[in-house]
Formats: sequence, C-alpha cells, structure tokens
Amino acid sequence: MAEAGHDLKAIYVNCSLKRDSGESHTATLMKASAGILEEQGVSVDWLHMASHQIAPGVYPDMTEQGWPTDEWPEIWPRVRDADILVIGTPLWLGEESSLCRVLIERLYAMSGELNDKGQSLFYGKTGGAIITGNEDGIKHTSMTLLFALQHLGYSIPPQADCGWIGEAGPGPSFGDKNDDGIRAGFDNGFTKRNCTIMSWNLIHLARMLKANSGYPNTGNDRNALNDGELFGFRLPG
Amino acid sequence: MAEAGHDLKAIYVNCSLKRDSGESHTATLMKASAGILEEQGVSVDWLHMASHQIAPGVYPDMTEQGWPTDEWPEIWPRVRDADILVIGTPLWLGEESSLCRVLIERLYAMSGELNDKGQSLFYGKTGGAIITGNEDGIKHTSMTLLFALQHLGYSIPPQADCGWIGEAGPGPSFGDKNDDGIRAGFDNGFTKRNCTIMSWNLIHLARMLKANSGYPNTGNDRNALNDGELFGFRLPG
Amino acid sequence: MAEAGHDLKAIYVNCSLKRDSGESHTATLMKASAGILEEQGVSVDWLHMASHQIAPGVYPDMTEQGWPTDEWPEIWPRVRDADILVIGTPLWLGEESSLCRVLIERLYAMSGELNDKGQSLFYGKTGGAIITGNEDGIKHTSMTLLFALQHLGYSIPPQADCGWIGEAGPGPSFGDKNDDGIRAGFDNGFTKRNCTIMSWNLIHLARMLKANSGYPNTGNDRNALNDGELFGFRLPG
Amino acid sequence: MAEAGHDLKAIYVNCSLKRDSGESHTATLMKASAGILEEQGVSVDWLHMASHQIAPGVYPDMTEQGWPTDEWPEIWPRVRDADILVIGTPLWLGEESSLCRVLIERLYAMSGELNDKGQSLFYGKTGGAIITGNEDGIKHTSMTLLFALQHLGYSIPPQADCGWIGEAGPGPSFGDKNDDGIRAGFDNGFTKRNCTIMSWNLIHLARMLKANSGYPNTGNDRNALNDGELFGFRLPG
Repeated sequence: MAEAGHDLKAIYVNCSLKRDSGESHTATLMKASAGILEEQGVSVDWLHMASHQIAPGVYPDMTEQGWPTDEWPEIWPRVRDADILVIGTPLWLGEESSLCRVLIERLYAMSGELNDKGQSLFYGKTGGAIITGNEDGIKHTSMTLLFALQHLGYSIPPQADCGWIGEAGPGPSFGDKNDDGIRAGFDNGFTKRNCTIMSWNLIHLARMLKANSGYPNTGNDRNALNDGELFGFRLPG
Repeated sequence: MAEAGHDLKAIYVNCSLKRDSGESHTATLMKASAGILEEQGVSVDWLHMASHQIAPGVYPDMTEQGWPTDEWPEIWPRVRDADILVIGTPLWLGEESSLCRVLIERLYAMSGELNDKGQSLFYGKTGGAIITGNEDGIKHTSMTLLFALQHLGYSIPPQADCGWIGEAGPGPSFGDKNDDGIRAGFDNGFTKRNCTIMSWNLIHLARMLKANSGYPNTGNDRNALNDGELFGFRLPG
Repeated sequence: MAEAGHDLKAIYVNCSLKRDSGESHTATLMKASAGILEEQGVSVDWLHMASHQIAPGVYPDMTEQGWPTDEWPEIWPRVRDADILVIGTPLWLGEESSLCRVLIERLYAMSGELNDKGQSLFYGKTGGAIITGNEDGIKHTSMTLLFALQHLGYSIPPQADCGWIGEAGPGPSFGDKNDDGIRAGFDNGFTKRNCTIMSWNLIHLARMLKANSGYPNTGNDRNALNDGELFGFRLPG
Repeated sequence: MAEAGHDLKAIYVNCSLKRDSGESHTATLMKASAGILEEQGVSVDWLHMASHQIAPGVYPDMTEQGWPTDEWPEIWPRVRDADILVIGTPLWLGEESSLCRVLIERLYAMSGELNDKGQSLFYGKTGGAIITGNEDGIKHTSMTLLFALQHLGYSIPPQADCGWIGEAGPGPSFGDKNDDGIRAGFDNGFTKRNCTIMSWNLIHLARMLKANSGYPNTGNDRNALNDGELFGFRLPG
C-alpha cells in the first residue's frame, strides 16, 4: 500500500446555515478532522455552501431548468477531483440542513458521469460525515449522508461518521464558551476519538483505493450493464 | 490485488419473518447474489434468523441476563469468521423486521471484541444489504443497515444495497407467480443490475482488504485511544 | 361537532423542484386531495416553494442574518392562518426535496410564536403529507414530515399520509402518460384510497378542533412551563 | 368537551431489553407520564414486553405460523381496549429496540380489525412515544413510532414525544445515580417539560375524541372503500 498521501485530495463541504463560515460550529470539528488529513499530506479544499448561490435540483446546471443563477457548474470540478469527500452539517429538528440536501441533490445530478472504466465517477472515492448540534440526531443524519454517498459510488470506511451533541434540549453548540470558559464538547473523549478514527480511516481507504487504481469494473461497468450484461447474475428457474 | 477469491468467506443472514426459509421472498434475491460470490470462489454460509432462538439484547450471551435460551453464542463464530456479511430483510411498515433488529443488537453486543491489531473485530470486513417487500422502504432500510454495519467497523463498497418493491400498495412479493405465470420482479432490470453491482463490489473490496491485511491501525487502535492517544487530532486553541 | 367546514382554511405547500408548478407530478395528487376539502367548504390556498425566493434558515426573517432576499415574512401569514397544512414533496434518493427542508426550517423558525392561550401557534391545526416519486421512500419521508409537524404543534389525524411510487427503479412519475395512454398511478386503488382517507380525516379533526377552540392549555402553557410550572409531573424520589 | 377522564384507559408498553422491569431506565420516565394521567382519572395498564413470550411477525396468532408460543392473543385485548397507547423504548445504535419492532409488527397484524363504524379499530385512540438512551436518537425513533401509530389509525396530539439522552457518547442512563448522588436527567427541564406536555395533550385529545365518539366514518369507511367508493376523490381528466 502506498504510504505517501501527498497525491490525495480531500474536500470538506460545510452545510451550515450560517452565512459567515467563521460562525459555524460544525466547522470547528471539521477543521480538527482536516488537520489530521493535512498532516498526512492530503491536500484539503473547503466549500461553504451558504457562501454560494447553488440552486436546488437534480440537474448538472439548473439555469437550464429556469433557475436564475447556479454556481454548481463552477464548483463541481472541485468535488469531482477530490478523492475524499467529508460532508459537515448542523442538526435542525434532528436532521441535516436544507443546504445539505441541496448538496446531495447536486451530487445526484452528476450520477450519470462515468470514469474511463465506465463506472460512476464517484467510484474509487471515499466519504464521511461530521454532524454537530445541541440536541439530537447524529446517527439519523449519518444514516442519510452515508447512504447517499455509497449510493452514488463512494466507499465508506469503518466508523466514517462523528459528531457532537449536548444533553437533550437546547444548550450550547460545539465550541461555544460556557460560563466557566470551557468550550462545549471540547472535553468529550467520544467525539474526539470518533473524529480521529473517521479521519484516519478515510486516509487508509483512500490510499488503498489509489494504490489499486480504484475498483475493477467487472460487475459494475455501466455501459455493459446497460447493454444487458449481468456478469453471472441468475435468478432461480 | 489478489485475484483469487477462494479464501474469502461470506455469510448471508436472512431476517425474514417466515419460519420456513423456503418461503422467504427475500431469500430468492439473496440466492442470486450469493451465486455470484460462489462463482468467484467465495465460500457462502447461510443463517435464517427465524430458524433459531436468538434472544434480543446487547450482550454476548443473553442467558446471563435472564433469558432462558440463546443460540447466539454458537452462531457468532460463523459471523466472526466471514469476510463479507450480507443482511437480507423484508419490509414491514417501511422498515426492517424485528428479527433484523435482533441481529443488529447481537452484532453490537460483540463490538468490544478486538482483532490482533487492537481494532474492532469487524475491521477488514465488508457488508451489504438486500431488501424486498411489496410496497416501500428499500432506501430507508438500507440507511439503517449500512449505517449499523459501518458503525460496527464494516467497510461499505459502492452501491452496496439492492432490493425489490412493487408499485405503491399491497401486491405480490418478489418471485411470486403472477396470473400470467411471470414471477414478480424477475423482469426488473434495475433490481437485477443493482444486485449484480452490489455482489461484485463486495467481492472487489473484500479482496482488496484481504490483500492489504485489512486496515493499518494508526488512528483506530482501540487500546491506544483508550489510553488517551489521539493520533494528531487537535481542536483549535 | 360542527358540520360546516366553510370557516376552515387549508394551505397546500408543494416542495417540488420544478420551477413551473404546472409540471409538478406531486401537484396532481395534491389537487385531488384539495378537491375533497373544497367540496366540503374548506377554502384552499396554494404555495409553490420553487416560485419564491425563500431563504434557508431557522430565523423568521433571514435578511437579518445576511441573506440578500427572503420572501418568507410575506408568506408566513398564509401558513399561520390556515387550519390545515398539507405538505407535498417529490422523492430524491428516498427523501424529501431540499425545498421541503427549507419549509421545515422556516416553520421551525416560527416556533417561538404563541397563540393567546400561551401555546405554540401551531396548536389546534392539523397536518398531513403527500409524497410522489418514481421509486421509493413514501414512508421514510412521511416519518420526517409528520414528525416535524407534530413537533411544531400540529395534530396528526389517522392515516395522514398518502403517495405514489412505481415499481423499484426509474420509471414514469405520477400522472405521466404511458405508451398506452394511461396515466401512471391513476389506476392505483391504494393511492386513491389513502388520499381520500387522509383528506377526510384532516377535515374531521380540523372541524373537531375548531369546535373545541383547539386544546385546553393545561400542561402546555408555554409561559407557565417557562416559569417552572410542571402541572403534576413528578419523578420518583 | 368532557372534563372527566375517569372513563379513559391508557396502556404504557415498555420495550426495554431488560428482563426485569424494575431495571428499566425508560420506565422511570414512563412512570412520571403515567402519574399525570392517573391524577386525571385515567386508568393505566402496563405491559413490559420482555416479561412475555411475544413472537415476531405480522399475524394475529403466530402459533398458527409455526411459532411454538405466542402470548400476543392474550395481550391484545388490553391494547385494543385502551384509548391511549404510550410506547416506551430504549435506544440502541440510535434506534428502537427489537422488542419495540415486535410490538409494531403485532399491532400491524391487527390492522384488519374494524370498529362498528367500519374504521380501523385504532381510530379514535391517541398515541405517544417516550424514548431514553445515553447517546442519540430520540427524534429518529419518534419518527418511526409516531409514523407507525398514525399509519395504524392512532391520532397524534401536538408534541407527542419526549425523552432523555446525555451528551454524545456513552454515559449514565436516565435516572442512574451520578457520583454526586444526583440522578442523571432528573434536572433536565427540557425532558420534564416535554413529558408534561405530551402527557396532557394525550389526555386532551383522548377526551375530545371520546366526547365526539371518535371520527365520523365519511371518507374512511373501510368496507365502502373496498367496494370502490371514493367519497369525492377525483383525479384530473
């Protein structure tokens, strides 16, 4: 397995509802994860959804569907070129933000793109999820995000999600300064361990996939499948 | 990458509510998937949850928690030794069966087990999900199952779920003979393609992980993490 | 119970990703539901999310949070004044549209508003969900929508969701003309019955709540609760 | 509206995985809720799933499907006769227990039963959910439970769920004594308020439905629907 990670690229997409990326609590945990990747030589790109006018929808360019503006076509190459995608989202009513669903719609919009093996373009990439809130929903939202990622073609390494929530009910968000000056969640060993594990496993699997040039295309070659090839699949007589 | 798969083992666990495994509709699609693996030299084991008395709960042996019988301790080595786990479940009210949740509880009960690298015992294994019903819920249930699997330490290859449902509302289950003698879902190209893709991608990733002896333990060594090592994780000052 | 419904108001909010409301498949089923309400004297208002610039976020007016435009403050009175809210959404990757999550965020943004009994403003209103797609996810999305509605204060009558999906995989959307000229889903008795039941039960519960002037405020008076009153709640010593 | 509640019956079903009901953390919060109902004259019945041999499955009597024992047929009349159903469940991997899914399957098994208006037998009843864990998943599990309840025919009053979880990660369960002698969650105002609100709203809606003899059967009369009556439902030409 290749030890060097300097040829790996990651993109961290923050789906915070804060216009100002500096105010995002989710970003605080995302940065800690990205720090691990950078120390291993992975080049890290950042996308703050709320700083862009990205139209909702399931087409590559929504201006062709009547939307007045759409920055997605400019942004897409950055996602396309990243070996690792980490989605960060806050929790509202126990679920991901609306901007996070815009991201998923736009990723889905690109699912017709194939790599040169005829596989979904997302094959060979790895994905993970970082979720913070003050209340409830890390696991629910991880289900949603990791399902969407693997459905698109990303590989999910072990324990590829992490997050922080406080005790049930309203309260400080991740990193908020409490009265005693301590920052909420910063002493939570569970959150820190899970973020560490996720970050390293994303690197491990991304390196392994890079060293193997992704997946063989037997069984997943989209053109062959469309032509009716089923690679040995047989239903009982 | 190792081309040969004859050293790989898979276990297909059917969470059908049918006592008689021969009546399970989900089994029909599971067998088609298993056929692909067997043809590639993977040895396939089968577990039909409803044929066993497996107690609910989150401990390795529930007889120690007051349950009168529990076959899980005998069954566990078969799951432990399999490189690939495929969970099959029917849909009821849009979700997995109760026997499927028993399976997840009992897998979770083993999450304290470590391999000789100090990782969760599930590291290095791959997982997928097969879901059938007559109505609705493949994606919802895949979210649940794939989340649980990755949370335990399984790796999820691209597009690791497949299934069949009919049009909204009650109707024939997968493989039921319709009036015209055609078996429900058997002509559904989407279901057949997805099952093919899932099955092959499970093989591809399992081979890759086998050839790499699983994951390096940097960042995920449970003993080190428990001792406070954080492998470069740092929160902002 | 009041038989007359002419004093009831409903709002149907369509979260379709189609800019042109005329192209929405979900709207077709929504109209059938609305027809039942209108025939019973309920006045029906329509909101097509994609026709408006409604900012994402959890505040009443997002222009105060840095967003350039936000039509929600103008729209809100229409939602506030409706006794019945029906949310319609298409399915993408098995879940509601991003515009649907914008709606939920903006409803949540209003959860501080109280009626003159000191209850959440949504108390006394009833809610339901209509979901269409070509593939999978009616129940998953109903879980999300009905949970959010009841969490905000809406009452959910029996069987308050309906929808249509086709057999697993891509295919026609609700109402699309098939080759034989028949419109997809139009002959689906399950969908039609569920839409009928939902629509009537929304009317029945809305009338009952209207006749009772909503809920008594014992136990749910927000001001009293904030003052520490617990209305008989006692934890074991 | 009838003020007296002495003619109302409630059943609290605990889906804890603890064999011994006395060890259940969820029961602690359930009892606080039941206390409010009893004080209002509601008669309260208790069912501890783990104390019974209730087979999984979707038929009224699973011994007819090959299961060796099944206590559900004896238990069912207690659920059938209760005006209010409160389901309590612990969280495992962010979801309800397997015993909770057994309960949902067995309730679903009874969905063919009709009352004397030809409606689902669950019409006119109200339902709520109480969820505790040490980590995450109140909202996810409420989505599942409240969806299932309304799908069966229960009515869901405003804010019909409550629960307690601690900060992200393992930790004490609800009511566990901390080192300082304080019981976990007992000082959580959010949990206490939500439990109070849920309990009262269940009473309010149950009384209202009782006073109105449940729902009119226009639009939901199962026999008429089965005969093709659609009560004014019309799709566009």
